[in-house]
Amino acid sequence: MQSYEFLLIIAVILLSTKVFGLISERVHMPQVVGALLAGVVLGPSVLGLVQETDFLLKTSEIGVIILMFMAGLDTDLEELKKTGVASFVIALIGVVVPLAAGTVLYLGFFPNAGDPLHLLKALFIGVVLTATSVSITVETLREMGKLKGKVGTAILGAAIIDDIMGIIVLTLVSGMTDPNVNPLSVIARIVAFFVLLVVVGLVMYRLFRAITREWSNHRRVAIYALSFCLIMAFVAEHYFGIADITGAYFAGLILCNLMEAREYINKKMNIVSYMIFSPIFFASIGIKTELHGMTANLLWFSLVLLVVAILTKIIGCGLGAKLMKFSWTDSLSIGLGMVSRGEVALIVAQKGAQAGLVDSHLFPPIVLMVIVTTLITPILLKLFMKDPEGPAPEIRHNHI
Amino acid sequence: MQSYEFLLIIAVILLSTKVFGLISERVHMPQVVGALLAGVVLGPSVLGLVQETDFLLKTSEIGVIILMFMAGLDTDLEELKKTGVASFVIALIGVVVPLAAGTVLYLGFFPNAGDPLHLLKALFIGVVLTATSVSITVETLREMGKLKGKVGTAILGAAIIDDIMGIIVLTLVSGMTDPNVNPLSVIARIVAFFVLLVVVGLVMYRLFRAITREWSNHRRVAIYALSFCLIMAFVAEHYFGIADITGAYFAGLILCNLMEAREYINKKMNIVSYMIFSPIFFASIGIKTELHGMTANLLWFSLVLLVVAILTKIIGCGLGAKLMKFSWTDSLSIGLGMVSRGEVALIVAQKGAQAGLVDSHLFPPIVLMVIVTTLITPILLKLFMKDPEGPAPEIRHNHI
Repeated sequence: MQSYEFLLIIAVILLSTKVFGLISERVHMPQVVGALLAGVVLGPSVLGLVQETDFLLKTSEIGVIILMFMAGLDTDLEELKKTGVASFVIALIGVVVPLAAGTVLYLGFFPNAGDPLHLLKALFIGVVLTATSVSITVETLREMGKLKGKVGTAILGAAIIDDIMGIIVLTLVSGMTDPNVNPLSVIARIVAFFVLLVVVGLVMYRLFRAITREWSNHRRVAIYALSFCLIMAFVAEHYFGIADITGAYFAGLILCNLMEAREYINKKMNIVSYMIFSPIFFASIGIKTELHGMTANLLWFSLVLLVVAILTKIIGCGLGAKLMKFSWTDSLSIGLGMVSRGEVALIVAQKGAQAGLVDSHLFPPIVLMVIVTTLITPILLKLFMKDPEGPAPEIRHNHI
Repeated sequence: MQSYEFLLIIAVILLSTKVFGLISERVHMPQVVGALLAGVVLGPSVLGLVQETDFLLKTSEIGVIILMFMAGLDTDLEELKKTGVASFVIALIGVVVPLAAGTVLYLGFFPNAGDPLHLLKALFIGVVLTATSVSITVETLREMGKLKGKVGTAILGAAIIDDIMGIIVLTLVSGMTDPNVNPLSVIARIVAFFVLLVVVGLVMYRLFRAITREWSNHRRVAIYALSFCLIMAFVAEHYFGIADITGAYFAGLILCNLMEAREYINKKMNIVSYMIFSPIFFASIGIKTELHGMTANLLWFSLVLLVVAILTKIIGCGLGAKLMKFSWTDSLSIGLGMVSRGEVALIVAQKGAQAGLVDSHLFPPIVLMVIVTTLITPILLKLFMKDPEGPAPEIRHNHI
């Protein structure tokens, strides 16, 4: 007998994320916060109604892929070119500071008891802290109507570069435990991915331009675009070991100059996203969080890790932004926008565990750090980002 | 390491169903035929690229639930009231004829070798033949712009009643193998479901009318509607043993008088459906079909079963329609529209196997019967249904 419980679970997720989202909106917080909290409440930490299943995992993966694809589609390439160098500097300092701080923190908390991997384990806590997850920030900026502005583009650009740097650091550090992996081959793979991107980008952009010239606003255009996005996500992950969401983002970037077709694709993707996939994605972040089983000592480490996680991104990225001549307010906003770790840090921690570099007792602190940075980012952004233009003009874009 | 292959599989399904669908359209067949063939080609019978997974199963289940929900939403209640008695007669004769013919066919082909369940097994082949699956017909009629007409409403009404009769027969026959199940309790469950439907219907219709009066065309309306549909599907299946798609259909029916909100909900559901869920559903029917491992004897049985399956529905339902004073052309159309067995017969066969009433070597003939009746229905409908109004006005509704 097949179980039909997943239907009820989806319904409960849709209803609770929507209701919590509307409540968040009432108290002037982004709907995403409500959706995340709905996940925490439904998950094992509070009610225990919803467990993570393979189906929810895959559905939420599609959710985050579609979100990043739309972020790519929404990118203003001209603006990104203007902020390219700035984004690079922001990302670079924003990776170095938490990497160093995480390493020092681990070494300070856990004295070496003869573990040959001790230093690598310390380095890996740093690696976990480098991984920015911008999906929450993207969502918040979109709700606030600030995604396409100077700050939004700098954050998105920095996050993309941060993702690539994070992958390099992750693969290099993991590689050191295994003498068979050549760090150079890792770098070669990343270079190869970008070469492929340029080739695929040129071909697919022309192909889509030809298709949309003949059948603009036909649903086949949106279906081809979604297929392209999924294939790019798969190729990045499967053949290059680069996060699927990076592939999806670049698929969107390749199509972002398609003008009306871009609007059409975005509209369809947006409906598919907010009707089912992104509520499941945001709720599943909350569901992932198992808050039980924390000792007092681990709680203490968790708190320090959390403070370090927040401060190092604000300081690192904010410093980078200030160096690149952003105003103090904008630098702070950029730093705040990079605080969220989301699912990326969890994936990194998971990969670290597989490589024997993250001990299982460190999972609750990491999860707590992820959930709090994720929850706190939209709140901080809403509090600190100046909003002289009044309510968001792009409100139609929110995903819950 | 998580596998990301499902992303590629979704992309391949989306692309191939779209391309095959467009080819079907070129040769004046419904796009659904192309989508089904795409599934057969991708599946184990031809290329073996895509296997059935839990994820695909669940996604396609959501696909068929959304399709039936939209069919409910699209129902013209006034028209159904007018055709209610007709639909009942069509369904009744359309159940009795294949039930009897299937039983006789099995008894003729397989002599009793002392199996105490022999007669029940024969009856069960009849039960498998009763199960009409209208999703393909609904799709075809919608593409042809005939869903809301007299014939379309009669088919839909008859299919709904057929579903209920099928469930009664299925539960009664399965119940006979287990002395613990009281046939009366089965009937009581079905009656209880309809009592619940009336109560829930009255409450939810008022609730939605209140919500849409305040927030018409807000996305929350569409999300609440989808949640309601999923909950009804779950409740039907889980608490009453009634097919989830029946629950989804009635959820749609309850909301079908909501006027503008109904249009808004339908539009959103339609996009969610054709962008991802219904291509996966139609492809998965094709993928389910494992055509290898057929012996000559079984092939012969398959062919006779197939002919019986097609003729008994045309004769049974057509006769019912003619008795209810439909024209000969309309009666034929109604008979043809009820030929498709689709996933319902597969689910019934699956349940029969669990009850020990369908031997595993009978699966290929049943699957072949299902796939051919499903493939042939839209072709026959297109060929035989008079179309004096020219091309379909409701073309925007097709799901591929």
